[in-house]
Amino acid sequence: MTTARQEVGKSRRGGRSARREKRAQSAQPTALPYIQRNVGVYTLLDDEGLSLIEHNADTILQEVGMEFRDDPEVLDIFRDAGADVQGERVRFERGMCRRIIQTTAPRQFRQHARNPERTVMIGGNNTLFCPSFGPPFVHDIERGRRYATLEDFENLTKLHHMLPAVHHSGGVVCEPVDVPVAERHLAMTSAHLRLNDKPFMGAVTAPERSLDTVNLAKIVFGDTFVEENCCIYSVVNTNAPLVLDATMLGALKTYARHNQAVVVSPFILAGAMSPVTVAGTLAQLFAEATAGLSLIQLIRPGAPCVFGTFSSPISLQTGAPTFGTPEGMQIQYCAAALARRLGVPFHSVGALTASKVPDAQAAYESAMQLSAAFHAGVNFIIHATGCLEGLLTTGYEKVIMDADRCAALQRFAEGVDLSEENQALDAIRDVGPGNHYLGCDHTQRNFETAFFRSTVSDNKTYEQWSADGSLWEHERANATWKSMLYTYQRPPLEQGIDDGISDYTAKRLEQIRSNGDSS
Amino acid sequence: MTTARQEVGKSRRGGRSARREKRAQSAQPTALPYIQRNVGVYTLLDDEGLSLIEHNADTILQEVGMEFRDDPEVLDIFRDAGADVQGERVRFERGMCRRIIQTTAPRQFRQHARNPERTVMIGGNNTLFCPSFGPPFVHDIERGRRYATLEDFENLTKLHHMLPAVHHSGGVVCEPVDVPVAERHLAMTSAHLRLNDKPFMGAVTAPERSLDTVNLAKIVFGDTFVEENCCIYSVVNTNAPLVLDATMLGALKTYARHNQAVVVSPFILAGAMSPVTVAGTLAQLFAEATAGLSLIQLIRPGAPCVFGTFSSPISLQTGAPTFGTPEGMQIQYCAAALARRLGVPFHSVGALTASKVPDAQAAYESAMQLSAAFHAGVNFIIHATGCLEGLLTTGYEKVIMDADRCAALQRFAEGVDLSEENQALDAIRDVGPGNHYLGCDHTQRNFETAFFRSTVSDNKTYEQWSADGSLWEHERANATWKSMLYTYQRPPLEQGIDDGISDYTAKRLEQIRSNGDSS
Repeated sequence: MTTARQEVGKSRRGGRSARREKRAQSAQPTALPYIQRNVGVYTLLDDEGLSLIEHNADTILQEVGMEFRDDPEVLDIFRDAGADVQGERVRFERGMCRRIIQTTAPRQFRQHARNPERTVMIGGNNTLFCPSFGPPFVHDIERGRRYATLEDFENLTKLHHMLPAVHHSGGVVCEPVDVPVAERHLAMTSAHLRLNDKPFMGAVTAPERSLDTVNLAKIVFGDTFVEENCCIYSVVNTNAPLVLDATMLGALKTYARHNQAVVVSPFILAGAMSPVTVAGTLAQLFAEATAGLSLIQLIRPGAPCVFGTFSSPISLQTGAPTFGTPEGMQIQYCAAALARRLGVPFHSVGALTASKVPDAQAAYESAMQLSAAFHAGVNFIIHATGCLEGLLTTGYEKVIMDADRCAALQRFAEGVDLSEENQALDAIRDVGPGNHYLGCDHTQRNFETAFFRSTVSDNKTYEQWSADGSLWEHERANATWKSMLYTYQRPPLEQGIDDGISDYTAKRLEQIRSNGDSS
Repeated sequence: MTTARQEVGKSRRGGRSARREKRAQSAQPTALPYIQRNVGVYTLLDDEGLSLIEHNADTILQEVGMEFRDDPEVLDIFRDAGADVQGERVRFERGMCRRIIQTTAPRQFRQHARNPERTVMIGGNNTLFCPSFGPPFVHDIERGRRYATLEDFENLTKLHHMLPAVHHSGGVVCEPVDVPVAERHLAMTSAHLRLNDKPFMGAVTAPERSLDTVNLAKIVFGDTFVEENCCIYSVVNTNAPLVLDATMLGALKTYARHNQAVVVSPFILAGAMSPVTVAGTLAQLFAEATAGLSLIQLIRPGAPCVFGTFSSPISLQTGAPTFGTPEGMQIQYCAAALARRLGVPFHSVGALTASKVPDAQAAYESAMQLSAAFHAGVNFIIHATGCLEGLLTTGYEKVIMDADRCAALQRFAEGVDLSEENQALDAIRDVGPGNHYLGCDHTQRNFETAFFRSTVSDNKTYEQWSADGSLWEHERANATWKSMLYTYQRPPLEQGIDDGISDYTAKRLEQIRSNGDSS
């Protein structure tokens, strides 16, 4: 068949190289700092159903309560607020946690990026995509699976800087296991601040590491600015069922006191850490999240906070977690609706998979969960890129392939344009029955930006595809990430700030090493 | 970690083999004849937006009209109904086509299967999955891509008989190119009726072939039963823009006169066969579909009919069709809503991809479109399994992998169970903070059927997966379809009916061959 390009060439000669240039630009999705949704959300439970979940969460908090371990200060805070504290177990009157949150927590807030053009709005009708968090391994199709290093961390941070539909630099995009544990947060934070100008996540593994993150942010953004604005976004997981431990509480308190955003995200493998049902899991996770979020608001009323979930069913045959499942999607849809009723932003998982390789399983599971996260209206979609092996691994090719799907969803979020130009009635009148639209004026005017263009899908004929080497998508993605790293350019950073990061890091490394705490 | 099975074993000894047997049964998704949705639909345009599309479709039908080619009888039918007929161009008063449809077309109808337990309800709150239609090639990972044969057709029909979340036997599941064109419909219809007891689709390539399908159905269901009930479901494509040709009109008339279901499905590669915009494409396809559907109702008021769409954007760089795209999803969501307003069932595409192989691209694109079809509330999801290369190929492994996702969506459609047992408050009280649910009574009672189980995803540890051969999903799917074909059992069919099919086919083959029409 005649191609669109040939047709356009036929009917409007001249200005060809200008058009080619414009086309080259528009081949990349627009690098918006975040997605302002122009489309609605999908809901599963009606208000009656959601009220029942809230009611059950209240019952759990009232009758069973939640344990806050090894942190007497937190117990005092809750006691002072009127909760029933016995040992480390804290019980709450019905509705108490939600009331505390709803009194002072912001419905949405801005997280500043060091490049102001990358600053994101979290909550409301906005959505953003963020890389995976936590994998100790990386994978690519040539070297296979191996322990991650700082070089991998930096590579992934560079790729995410360049990917236009990834809006956040993330946190532990992989564990740089060649760096001692006590020093890792410094290496990772420096990499985020230097190699990527999008917003980033803070360390949560010890209160002093959280404080280091705050101090490094102050070097970049300024002391006062950090105390008055959100520049760091961090995730605190509960130890389901119904426990928050001292490590997580330490991070929560540090960030909340400095007015930095904290997500309270129950980490639940349903069937092991919660009941084997969607309704039971929802009540438990809502109880855990609201207890944690109320603590933030008691510590610093008005501090930005986010309701998060990471909830996947386990296989009841093997005990292994499963991903992209109907139940995982159901939990996410319902939790998003609970967050909207609560009135705080919602954070949840994207392209998760249990597959070890960038195969069809990885893509099916990831697409199902990512698509559900998007349609649920999740504000902050973590693990939107790279996940393999249930987050034990991040894959180089997987990052590229997932980011392509993020770009597709970003385009979907623009909604349907009903302008007169897009209604195209004149075009339909002009072309008439039995003809084609390839060369008509309306197509000429609109074809450059008309449809989404994938960067890694192959839409060619079988013959062209064979002539190009019969590549599978992961093979094309392999070429893509290599070429991106080759052309990567570090975003500009003031020399004074760069030096400040170096000086702070050097000073802290000396302290850490002299304390002998490097394990 | 201790597995669920070990835990369950620990806490409730005895009856182990009975449980294992029950488990083996529940490992397969329930083979329901179709999905009665217990979940809502996702909508993109509000009533105002949908009214605008209807208004524009009316404008197209009034001002531009539609061509019905080489069929004077159809022109007479429209003229008698009050349309403006000039040559082959038919123009309609505003709202006329919708009014004709809404006066007599059923909102939903039953398509009978030869096994009454497989009879499906099409329309309303119901959804079903159907195999791909039309590919001249088949693919498997060992033999690669090759022209399809009758053996492939029969293999695919056997697999779809066995797959529990595929509810229909389909039509041209592949083109058996080793059978002469004029004889193919007989070979295909016989295979559907003998090898699969689910409902099936009829031939549309010539009126006499449609009539053969009706006659074969009568051998199975009985003369009167066929005239009074829908036993055949067939798809008629418009030749967009705004044309219906004599071949398609011939099939439409034959089936409508025999009270058999006809889908009118504009086949549109947007940008080539419709404007390069979603809004323009929607208006055009709605105009085409309602013109075709009104013809059905004029021919036989009350005959079952279905609004269908197949609409994918072309790549405006290469002219090639693209699949699983944001625009393809948007068109589907909006068209489903238009169908609900019109009041007829809606038929649209599922797991489409442009990929040539069962790779990540195939899975991402397929999952996005299949998931959109499901959430849009499409009643009849065609191309739910097998598609590769934009329907030029159907893949054996792809069938297995797609069907696994259909099963996941079937599970999702059950919705969230809010029964007291599923709320699981007693379990949460029993387990308490910091413990696990693996051995508790509630888990014992519910774990057999608690979560969806994929048949081809691998959720094992990396080490177990490696020990099992480090297989990618398409390799596991390869083993699955081979083992299914090995264990396939033909569904029982009365000897008299089987003989009747043979006799009719033999008689018709003799006629066809004596006419020399075998090309």
